[in-house]
Amino acid sequence: MESRWEKLKTQLKKEKIDAFLITDSTNIFYFFGIWIEGVAFFAGERKFVLTKPMYQEEVEKNFFNWEPIICKNSIEEKLGELSERIGPLKCGFEANFLSFNQYKKIKERFKGELIPCCGLVEKIRSVKEEKEIDCIKKACQVTKSALEYLRGILYSGITEKMVLRKAVSYILKEADDVSFPPIVLFGERTSLPHGKPSLRKLKKGELVLIDIGAKVGNYCADMTRTFVWDGVSERWQRVIEFVKNLQRLAIENIKPGVECAQVEKKIRERSKEAGYEENVLHSLGHGVGLEIHEEPFFSSKSNTPLQEGMVVTVEPGIYFPGEGGVRIEDTILVTSQGGKILP
Amino acid sequence: MESRWEKLKTQLKKEKIDAFLITDSTNIFYFFGIWIEGVAFFAGERKFVLTKPMYQEEVEKNFFNWEPIICKNSIEEKLGELSERIGPLKCGFEANFLSFNQYKKIKERFKGELIPCCGLVEKIRSVKEEKEIDCIKKACQVTKSALEYLRGILYSGITEKMVLRKAVSYILKEADDVSFPPIVLFGERTSLPHGKPSLRKLKKGELVLIDIGAKVGNYCADMTRTFVWDGVSERWQRVIEFVKNLQRLAIENIKPGVECAQVEKKIRERSKEAGYEENVLHSLGHGVGLEIHEEPFFSSKSNTPLQEGMVVTVEPGIYFPGEGGVRIEDTILVTSQGGKILP
Repeated sequence: MESRWEKLKTQLKKEKIDAFLITDSTNIFYFFGIWIEGVAFFAGERKFVLTKPMYQEEVEKNFFNWEPIICKNSIEEKLGELSERIGPLKCGFEANFLSFNQYKKIKERFKGELIPCCGLVEKIRSVKEEKEIDCIKKACQVTKSALEYLRGILYSGITEKMVLRKAVSYILKEADDVSFPPIVLFGERTSLPHGKPSLRKLKKGELVLIDIGAKVGNYCADMTRTFVWDGVSERWQRVIEFVKNLQRLAIENIKPGVECAQVEKKIRERSKEAGYEENVLHSLGHGVGLEIHEEPFFSSKSNTPLQEGMVVTVEPGIYFPGEGGVRIEDTILVTSQGGKILP
Repeated sequence: MESRWEKLKTQLKKEKIDAFLITDSTNIFYFFGIWIEGVAFFAGERKFVLTKPMYQEEVEKNFFNWEPIICKNSIEEKLGELSERIGPLKCGFEANFLSFNQYKKIKERFKGELIPCCGLVEKIRSVKEEKEIDCIKKACQVTKSALEYLRGILYSGITEKMVLRKAVSYILKEADDVSFPPIVLFGERTSLPHGKPSLRKLKKGELVLIDIGAKVGNYCADMTRTFVWDGVSERWQRVIEFVKNLQRLAIENIKPGVECAQVEKKIRERSKEAGYEENVLHSLGHGVGLEIHEEPFFSSKSNTPLQEGMVVTVEPGIYFPGEGGVRIEDTILVTSQGGKILP
């Protein structure tokens, strides 16, 4: 964990900030290895964690060199008192993970300047250490074998929800948890990128879309397969081939130094050339790690360069509202040699 | 859904606000019955929903009388343009569900005044309709039978994680989903109110704490049982009896018109009298519905009066760090006759 702190300190020096408030629970987990509700606050060499009584035992066991402050009432008040004692400070805070309301409460009590910061910790998290990659790899292994297993249990009349349950049960046997509630869609419902599994029954020759992920050691995997079940459909087979080619093109373009927007644009252009411009409903993919969606994000505006050790999903999709959709997704490790599909 | 809107309009009139932004996805679900990322915005008689292309099909199917605005880029920008066209407005927003960063982006572009509001929709949600209570009742039925089932499968050497998996599999067979990742703790680990299930193995005569909930039709249940497994422990049996009595006392005090703080205080006082003041690590309970934790919240400061139709958990807990803890939790419907344990 020490090297993670060093990276953050370097960032803060660059921003000329002498204190920092971490309010996102995933970011707190990243530094401390436990999930709590509260705030990590460091000011120069002093480090505090403010939390509720119910987390006291865990905090005292896990936060070495940190001063735990157990707040029976308001965390914001305690933070105010603390800043009075050690302030005035120029203190960064996580502007994406502090509600307007919490901000106001802290602002009223805080001695010093509050500087909105975006993505400082998320940027560090986006480049994975070897141990983190190992977890993601294992999560991908389970996810891949779950997809194979699920393909084998389909039958005419099975519902989306029944497949969802089988998916969760399988993943829980082999991994710690699911990364997100599985998406299982049949037929015309595959056109809904984030559709919720329903009682819709499967028929022969229909599209099946399964988007699932296992979680191992707190790290997520994310994979999607779309196929025609027990039958042939020339139309959908053509779309599936097209999406597979899009994915191949994207992965070929993944290299350290390439900006996310460049890869995204390639996929948008290729889709446009094929007449599918209006059928692309979401971006190409996202980073994956402690969270299922995290930095870096593919988007036409993101100038974030890919780096060795980043783990991203590549999930092109082509959708026809009311008719069906095809998405193929894999989890990719960025290496010096290019994109490597995990596991 | 119409009556929900009418309730909100009444609230807004009281606050003298002529427009409102809903940014919390659960609150959006409450009014529209679908889960999307985006913003619901209404200004007088005009109603808009701003979302991403991936939700277009679902939004067009479900948002009757609403004008969908599909944002390929920034939702905040589109909202700004919209307010230019129809403004200036005195517009409320959900101050607990808008990050500092999003607020700033909207503020820069919005024509009109932005008024921070807290809990307007949550307050309406806290009083359940009959259909909602039916769902929660069913969720409680599944949760209760899951707890009975889990009690029967324990054996010496089973791990917390193994029980967690059995819990999820059981709930998924009988309900739509779990309400939250189950908590299963053995022995001294029961002292961690939000502990994560581990590879800790069960031994005879130890405490077992299982805190689980099923979800039916998007509504949550929440129940906890703590017991000594296959053996006798006078010490823990005494604590268990004490906590059961605390719960009975709390439920007896639940009546329409009683403030949450009054019930909370009764439990704190009784615990103090018994010498357990320092062993109470969390409040007595919380509302439950679309979310596992929602309005009303029991706390020494909450002057919210209980109302007929509210559904709350009552979960007193007494914890001894490093030794063990006991929590007993049920889901309670507030009726004109008092608190009724569900199902």
